[in-house]
Amino acid sequence: MAIGEFELIDRYFRPLVGSRREVVLGIGDDAALLAVPSGMQLVAALDTLVEGKHFPVGSPAHSIGHRALAVNLSDLAAMGAEPAWYLLALTLPAIEDSFVAELARGMQELAARFDMSLVGGDTTAGPLSLSVQASGFVRPGEALLRSGASPGDLLFVSGSLGEAAAGLQLEMGNVGGLIGDGGSSAALLRQRFLYPTPRVALGKALRGLASACIDVSDGLVADAGKLAASSGCAIRIETQQLSISAALEAVLGTERALQLLLSGGDDYELCFTLPAARLAELPTRLLGANCPVACIGVVENGSGVTVCTRGKPVDIARSGFDHFRSQG
Amino acid sequence: MAIGEFELIDRYFRPLVGSRREVVLGIGDDAALLAVPSGMQLVAALDTLVEGKHFPVGSPAHSIGHRALAVNLSDLAAMGAEPAWYLLALTLPAIEDSFVAELARGMQELAARFDMSLVGGDTTAGPLSLSVQASGFVRPGEALLRSGASPGDLLFVSGSLGEAAAGLQLEMGNVGGLIGDGGSSAALLRQRFLYPTPRVALGKALRGLASACIDVSDGLVADAGKLAASSGCAIRIETQQLSISAALEAVLGTERALQLLLSGGDDYELCFTLPAARLAELPTRLLGANCPVACIGVVENGSGVTVCTRGKPVDIARSGFDHFRSQG
Repeated sequence: MAIGEFELIDRYFRPLVGSRREVVLGIGDDAALLAVPSGMQLVAALDTLVEGKHFPVGSPAHSIGHRALAVNLSDLAAMGAEPAWYLLALTLPAIEDSFVAELARGMQELAARFDMSLVGGDTTAGPLSLSVQASGFVRPGEALLRSGASPGDLLFVSGSLGEAAAGLQLEMGNVGGLIGDGGSSAALLRQRFLYPTPRVALGKALRGLASACIDVSDGLVADAGKLAASSGCAIRIETQQLSISAALEAVLGTERALQLLLSGGDDYELCFTLPAARLAELPTRLLGANCPVACIGVVENGSGVTVCTRGKPVDIARSGFDHFRSQG
Repeated sequence: MAIGEFELIDRYFRPLVGSRREVVLGIGDDAALLAVPSGMQLVAALDTLVEGKHFPVGSPAHSIGHRALAVNLSDLAAMGAEPAWYLLALTLPAIEDSFVAELARGMQELAARFDMSLVGGDTTAGPLSLSVQASGFVRPGEALLRSGASPGDLLFVSGSLGEAAAGLQLEMGNVGGLIGDGGSSAALLRQRFLYPTPRVALGKALRGLASACIDVSDGLVADAGKLAASSGCAIRIETQQLSISAALEAVLGTERALQLLLSGGDDYELCFTLPAARLAELPTRLLGANCPVACIGVVENGSGVTVCTRGKPVDIARSGFDHFRSQG
C-alpha cells in the first residue's frame, strides 16, 4: 500500500519521539528544539547507509533500520558518550507501507535500549539511503578521542572481529571456498552483519581510563591506523593475541578468517588504548560493559600499523576500506 | 582527477571547520564535540537534496552546495534561531575533484555569512544526494513555532514568492508558453532557484513578536496550511494583497505567475502570523532584517486555507508539494 509523505511521518516516525526530558519539541515543526543538560557537551555523529554499498539490495528493512542507527551509536560509543536523540534523513524509491513499518521498528527497537528519541528529519523520494544524525552527551574533558595514545600504551579491541564482514559475504552469496556447513555458524555471522551491537556501555566504562578510542567500522588495521595517525604514534598488532571466532574459522578456515579479522569492516567494535600503569583498573570497569575485550598490541614511537606474528611483520593483503574504492 | 575519500575530506571539508568557540572538536574523530552556550536551547534541522528531485541533473555544483545548506538555514530561520554549526552527509557517484571543490565553495560562502562551522559528517559513494544537519541556538521560550497562531492574527510573508519555482522550470527547460524574452527576468528567476536566501535575520527579528512561523519550501498554500493545522486555526489569503514580482509576470504572465506564487516551492521565504495589536512593532523589527514583508491574509476560526479574490474563494489548482507525488 502506498501512502503519502505526511501520513508516513505521522504513522511510523512520530511515535518514535518518545519522552526524553531534553526534547522540548520533536517532530512536527521546522526543526527540533532540544535542551542539552547543564554542564554537558554535545557529541554529534552523522553516518549514511546507501543500498548496494553499505547493505545488499534486498536486505531486510528491519536490519536496515537497526544498522542505520547502530553505526551512529557506535560513533557515540567510541567517544564515550551517553546517547540522547537522533534525526533521520530517509530517501526511498517509493513508499511501501510494510517496508517503512519494518524499518521504523528496527530503528525503534535499538533506540529503546538507550532511551533515544527520534526528534526530526526528512523523507524524500530517490534511491534508497538513510542518513542518521545521532547526538549524545559527555562531561567536558571526558570524551574519548582518537588522539590521546602514547608510546607504551596497550592496544585493546572488543568482541569478535571479522564476523560481520563474513556475514556480509554470506548475505551477498560470495562464499566461494566455504568450508563450514553454512548452518549455525553462518547464521551467527549473518546476524553479526545484520544486527551489529554498538558498544555504548563499553565506551562509557572507558571514560577517564582509555587514552584513545575509535570504532572499528572500516577494518581493524585501517581504523587502528587512524588512531595511530591522530595520536602521532605507531601501533604494533600481534596476531598471536588475536582471537579468531569459532564461527568465522568454521565457515572460512583460519587464513581467510584472519584476513577478515584484520581488514573486514562493519564490526562496530571499539579499539582503544590504555596506559600500561592503569591496566589493573580495567577489569572493574568492564563489569558493566557486557562484552569481552582483548589486548592485541602496543603503541610505539613512529607511525603506521605493523601486524606481527611472533614478533615478525606480516603482509596485510588488504589494509583498509575506502568507500569509493571497494564494495563493502 | 579522482582522489580518495580521506584526501577529499582533508582537502575540501576540513578547511570549513572554522573557529567558532562552541566547536570543541570538529572533523577528524568519531564524532564532533560541541559546547552549547549556557542557557541556550539547541535547534536542529535535517534536510536532504537528491539529484533529479530537488535540483535538476547537471545543476552547478556551487549552487548545489549553497542550496543544501540554505534549505537547512531556512528551517533554523523559521524557528528564529541563531545558526551555529552543521554536519554534511555527501553521497557522490564518483569523486570529481572540481565538482567537490565547487560544492564545498558554494557551501562555505553561505556558511561564512553566518559564521557557521562544518563540524563533521560522512562521504560515501552512491547516487548524488546531500543531507545537511544544521544546528543553532535560541533562548528558552523564544523559538518561533508553527503552533502559536490565533484567530484574529494577521498573516505575513517575506520576499517574492513563485520566483524560485519559475527559475526551476527555466533550469529544466519546461517553459512552454514563455511570454518574456528570457533575458534579465529569466536570469533573475533562475538565480532565485539556484541561490535561495535563508531569512535568518528576519527570523531572529521576529522572536517574541510573531505568534507562529514556517518557511515556505513546499508552496505558500501548502505551508500556510501546515501552520494553520499546527495552530488549530484556519487561514484566509487575499490574492489582492499578494505582490507578483515583475520578473515572474514578465516571463510567465499574470495567471501562471499567481499560480506559482500560491503553490510553487523552493522560495525559502518566511510565512508568519502576528497579533493585530502588535502590528505597530513590526516596522522597527524589520529594520535589520533586510527583506520586504507583506500582509497577505488573516487567521480565522476553523481549519484549512482559503484563497480569496475580493473576499470570494478561488480554486487553487495545485495546493501543495508532496515529495513522493510531484517532481519538484
